[in-house]
Amino acid sequence: MRADGRQPDELRPFKVTLQPNKYAEGSVLIEAGDTKVLCTASVDERVPPFLKGQGKGWVTAEYAMLPRATQSRNQRESIKGKQVGRTMEIQRLIGRALRSVVLLDALGERTITIDCDVLQADGGTRTTSITGGFLALALAIHKLSGTVSFARYPLADFLASVSVGVLQEQVLLDLNYEEDSKAKVDMNVVMTGAGSFVEVQGTGEESPFSRAELDGMLGLAEQGIRQLIAWQKDTLGDAGIRIGEAKR
Amino acid sequence: MRADGRQPDELRPFKVTLQPNKYAEGSVLIEAGDTKVLCTASVDERVPPFLKGQGKGWVTAEYAMLPRATQSRNQRESIKGKQVGRTMEIQRLIGRALRSVVLLDALGERTITIDCDVLQADGGTRTTSITGGFLALALAIHKLSGTVSFARYPLADFLASVSVGVLQEQVLLDLNYEEDSKAKVDMNVVMTGAGSFVEVQGTGEESPFSRAELDGMLGLAEQGIRQLIAWQKDTLGDAGIRIGEAKR
Amino acid sequence: MRADGRQPDELRPFKVTLQPNKYAEGSVLIEAGDTKVLCTASVDERVPPFLKGQGKGWVTAEYAMLPRATQSRNQRESIKGKQVGRTMEIQRLIGRALRSVVLLDALGERTITIDCDVLQADGGTRTTSITGGFLALALAIHKLSGTVSFARYPLADFLASVSVGVLQEQVLLDLNYEEDSKAKVDMNVVMTGAGSFVEVQGTGEESPFSRAELDGMLGLAEQGIRQLIAWQKDTLGDAGIRIGEAKR
Amino acid sequence: MRADGRQPDELRPFKVTLQPNKYAEGSVLIEAGDTKVLCTASVDERVPPFLKGQGKGWVTAEYAMLPRATQSRNQRESIKGKQVGRTMEIQRLIGRALRSVVLLDALGERTITIDCDVLQADGGTRTTSITGGFLALALAIHKLSGTVSFARYPLADFLASVSVGVLQEQVLLDLNYEEDSKAKVDMNVVMTGAGSFVEVQGTGEESPFSRAELDGMLGLAEQGIRQLIAWQKDTLGDAGIRIGEAKR
Amino acid sequence: MRADGRQPDELRPFKVTLQPNKYAEGSVLIEAGDTKVLCTASVDERVPPFLKGQGKGWVTAEYAMLPRATQSRNQRESIKGKQVGRTMEIQRLIGRALRSVVLLDALGERTITIDCDVLQADGGTRTTSITGGFLALALAIHKLSGTVSFARYPLADFLASVSVGVLQEQVLLDLNYEEDSKAKVDMNVVMTGAGSFVEVQGTGEESPFSRAELDGMLGLAEQGIRQLIAWQKDTLGDAGIRIGEAKR
Amino acid sequence: MRADGRQPDELRPFKVTLQPNKYAEGSVLIEAGDTKVLCTASVDERVPPFLKGQGKGWVTAEYAMLPRATQSRNQRESIKGKQVGRTMEIQRLIGRALRSVVLLDALGERTITIDCDVLQADGGTRTTSITGGFLALALAIHKLSGTVSFARYPLADFLASVSVGVLQEQVLLDLNYEEDSKAKVDMNVVMTGAGSFVEVQGTGEESPFSRAELDGMLGLAEQGIRQLIAWQKDTLGDAGIRIGEAKR
Repeated sequence: MRADGRQPDELRPFKVTLQPNKYAEGSVLIEAGDTKVLCTASVDERVPPFLKGQGKGWVTAEYAMLPRATQSRNQRESIKGKQVGRTMEIQRLIGRALRSVVLLDALGERTITIDCDVLQADGGTRTTSITGGFLALALAIHKLSGTVSFARYPLADFLASVSVGVLQEQVLLDLNYEEDSKAKVDMNVVMTGAGSFVEVQGTGEESPFSRAELDGMLGLAEQGIRQLIAWQKDTLGDAGIRIGEAKR
Repeated sequence: MRADGRQPDELRPFKVTLQPNKYAEGSVLIEAGDTKVLCTASVDERVPPFLKGQGKGWVTAEYAMLPRATQSRNQRESIKGKQVGRTMEIQRLIGRALRSVVLLDALGERTITIDCDVLQADGGTRTTSITGGFLALALAIHKLSGTVSFARYPLADFLASVSVGVLQEQVLLDLNYEEDSKAKVDMNVVMTGAGSFVEVQGTGEESPFSRAELDGMLGLAEQGIRQLIAWQKDTLGDAGIRIGEAKR
Repeated sequence: MRADGRQPDELRPFKVTLQPNKYAEGSVLIEAGDTKVLCTASVDERVPPFLKGQGKGWVTAEYAMLPRATQSRNQRESIKGKQVGRTMEIQRLIGRALRSVVLLDALGERTITIDCDVLQADGGTRTTSITGGFLALALAIHKLSGTVSFARYPLADFLASVSVGVLQEQVLLDLNYEEDSKAKVDMNVVMTGAGSFVEVQGTGEESPFSRAELDGMLGLAEQGIRQLIAWQKDTLGDAGIRIGEAKR
Repeated sequence: MRADGRQPDELRPFKVTLQPNKYAEGSVLIEAGDTKVLCTASVDERVPPFLKGQGKGWVTAEYAMLPRATQSRNQRESIKGKQVGRTMEIQRLIGRALRSVVLLDALGERTITIDCDVLQADGGTRTTSITGGFLALALAIHKLSGTVSFARYPLADFLASVSVGVLQEQVLLDLNYEEDSKAKVDMNVVMTGAGSFVEVQGTGEESPFSRAELDGMLGLAEQGIRQLIAWQKDTLGDAGIRIGEAKR
Repeated sequence: MRADGRQPDELRPFKVTLQPNKYAEGSVLIEAGDTKVLCTASVDERVPPFLKGQGKGWVTAEYAMLPRATQSRNQRESIKGKQVGRTMEIQRLIGRALRSVVLLDALGERTITIDCDVLQADGGTRTTSITGGFLALALAIHKLSGTVSFARYPLADFLASVSVGVLQEQVLLDLNYEEDSKAKVDMNVVMTGAGSFVEVQGTGEESPFSRAELDGMLGLAEQGIRQLIAWQKDTLGDAGIRIGEAKR
Repeated sequence: MRADGRQPDELRPFKVTLQPNKYAEGSVLIEAGDTKVLCTASVDERVPPFLKGQGKGWVTAEYAMLPRATQSRNQRESIKGKQVGRTMEIQRLIGRALRSVVLLDALGERTITIDCDVLQADGGTRTTSITGGFLALALAIHKLSGTVSFARYPLADFLASVSVGVLQEQVLLDLNYEEDSKAKVDMNVVMTGAGSFVEVQGTGEESPFSRAELDGMLGLAEQGIRQLIAWQKDTLGDAGIRIGEAKR
């Protein structure tokens, strides 16, 4: 049993508020336990310079934490004058992950920017940003499909992410901050609805890990992501949104 | 009658959620119509270098808008590499206004930082930040008073702010974004519970204004702020918080 | 009687040197007591991106202090790597104020940049920058009118600014640095030749102020600005420059 | 057979020049095919602020590419004014990986900085930096042990890294730039001499990958790293350097 | 005969206003033809970190041009976010040159900062800054000597600088902007009162120059600097300031 | 006799590796004693904005030192967020010097960027960068001439640079770091194959120097550069490269 009463293979309660923002093409407030992330998807009818004139679209992400999202206040990156390494690493991961399920050719020359702003952080902010960012993206593409007639539906599959780790010789699913700070290994996994891996990032700075531990973590992550994707399907289904048949 | 059905001297519906953030010493989510600002108050047991060793405290504020708080997405200031002039101007105003009701000597050598992050903007974000920031500050000082025994209660009075303007020859209270962008004059007023002025900032870039218009705006602002402060008293009173008798 | 021998409602001696700079389209060295500001107006036959193709012009201002303009030396903003909040706030104010008397449509697609560089600071640098910046602007537009035939004269009215404040229960006009640093309220007022308000910015961080004090300050400011505008008229008149009849 | 004649499970020729730099405490020029990285280890008898007074040491890494290390010239980060996201991500990875085999307590209050400067890039610059950075670190600690008497030898194990990927349905070891740019999956693995994992980072942005592909890549990486560590042992052994018996 | 009527070996008219700034320990407004530089010397009773505790002083310089000091307006370096290469090069030169005549040991642990702000530029701004900066420095040290009793007078000698160049096969002294922009060689020379060289910087980017031309320029520079130093002596002598006998 | 056994007028051993970089159009690794600089020449078929449409080319240089090129480690400029003054000064010098022997009109609308990255520094890094940068430039133009048919060969002459100085009353050629740090005067000279001066930069911050010392240094520099240019001719000749007959 874990400090918050969960089983080792149990996700935290997930909650979502659809369209909390009246301006964004897609938006969700996603909560995983006490971690709260506001994800907005903004559609811009232009692409970055390196894609101009190729008929392809682009999906990118930005990530930030409010100064008091954490136990002690952090200085704003606007005052530091730059985004720190951790921020860049995370937003690059979110962007890559989301692009993996978007048919950029089908999207056409437009950019969708997913902003993930962490209002409160209690572990798993990057994985929750991916799971929530996918929902915001799906809402925006759904909205776009009302005005643009896509030859193929640009969203190819579902996508979700979860963290796993090893703490006191036990493999745990969906670590909160306290668990995460004590874990000897920490791993983030991103998978598609079809059950393929998009990202696997495991780090054993505190203590290297064995192949058996790696396999244990991968198994638990697969199981957790399957639940998250089922929950995403229900959430979008209730809102009348269906991911297109298009296969990549 | 105004586009949203209000009378010229009518405030938008104000709403507050107390303590939405589990880490901050004080926090509120304040809503004025569709403007939503998350205000947190963080206590730090240190003061800035220029105050060290004087036995005095400090109150300061920071302000930011999420990228999609507005109709079209704005670039993050962390990516621009600096805060823009508008941001600096606003957070300097919020900080000055809040300090005017704090007895810095009584607070002792500690800093309270008020972060005002605009989740959604529909006009009046700076005045709403002041009104909400005051509540977060009051909650934090109330919490502090549970562990620190202050010789005098460091919060001397209530404080609220509202915008007024002149649109089509009519003086209006609490402008929303649409009204604000058409107004010929725009004025922000900050007042204390005792009815004194803390800040008066009127700008007639589009069209200079007369003394009569100025007087009209000041009158409407006084009336609106009186209502806001009554509402603040109720809000804090319901939470069992009373501003000390201490006079400045 | 004030420390420098002035009456409460008395301006400091104002002095101006016209065209001290041989390159700028308009320039003045303005002195208000010991405050000295070099103001240049530079005409550029382009407009910022947001105005392109609209047939309108633009007026903008920049403000800076030389490192030793003040009692103790300040670090250069070029070395800090950015303009500080105070600088941005002031130059935004100067720009807004000057634009209020310019007919941007009449000016045509060109930008006039007013640079206000404080050589020596003894209080009132922002108000002196506005009063002097107006003169530089008027000289530049006058010079422009020699080569461009404007349908309407682009300068609609005179403009000047002064500070007022409350010190030891007395309302004072045109505060020097020593008075300013002790005043409980500080207010900057900008008005046109027609007697309308363009900006009213009063701050009572040290001590909130009453409506009566506000009215007293506004009255004194009106009187001081009237004198400044009479002096501006003489100054320009002596130089053979007359502001056009055009009404806004 | 691969374009450069290698078998799928074949490393590129590895070459090392020990101590090419006369100032650094440890330095190597490592070459993996046409990828050339100069790694220096600099010892500083201080630790970062967050470690002061704890009796522990620190190991950190910085990574950069010379402007013409690549096919077309890249702008210097000193001119951009900041390190880009990719750089930060890589140097954070190198630092974490190297720290995993250092006994920071045993090292004492000193910092070792590993600089990895890529002179020529042909794929695998981050994994080659880790493999070479380890050698520079080992040389520096060996040198330190000549003057400092460590209670335990601060280097606990060997460490090396290699990339693996999937290209045209085939799992390949140690991709060069051309292979890397065409691969559907790209994975970097870091392991210790004891055969444990320190980092596993797999990315399938172009195309998600299956568990079978993941297992194939992990197997190939293990085999490649075993060879690299054997080569590291020979290299250091020839230089008379033996990693201490100390276990973590 | 030159365009402005001068002989090839003739300086422009030099003019100086002593102590134009009421705050600085030393200040001069120096004019060389239409080039006008405001030089202030600020004394700070601290030294930079690298000199702490050595009992030595420091002299440093900063240089900037007002935006409209030149024919067309330049962007402020505070807005660019950094000083450009030309600025850094010039202020490093001014600082080095001035330090060469200061006995840093005799000065004691204090820093004198010479700010050279170009109000109007017509060629020779760096040499004029050195010549004027020396005067401001001398005034500041003279003032210091009124309150500090120096064992040796910290100013060892006079110092001045001038530019020379080759234009249409003729060697010219003290080039103005028009001459400078057409010259094939441009050289700045700094010398002491004793007739020694402190800096010699000749550049023939447009066209390499011969040893004979170099000798011609050096001769003319020596002659010009001798005149400037005589003028400095008169200027300071009239103000009752005498450079101490101290030899370096 | 000098500490390293050289005569006063003796160069350090010079060594060059041609084309150490497989991507750059021209590259050399140049060694002057223990000073090692990697110089690459990159051709870009565009020119900077200020040259667009004039049919002329451009040559520019950038300079940097690896963090541990020196005795103690230096912070990277990418982390400082800017290039320091010394770097800017040096790269401006290298660029100017190289441009002096290039016929920019003949080169056509293309830019050649010379990157000089110091791998190890032992004095004379700027002069070695010029001497080596010239070789990289010559290799790149030679390569270009294989595909572009130039009306005139764009490289007009050879170019090399050396430092000279005065140490203990003796004039020395090609100072190493130890000599340089003790020298009272330090001078860098750049000359063409035709024996003309391109740059002469002498600095006597520690101690002003006489005309006789200046003449002594110039003589020694001429002699050293003559040897360097002979060595450059051999080096390029062995590689089958001949500088065109074109005269400037």
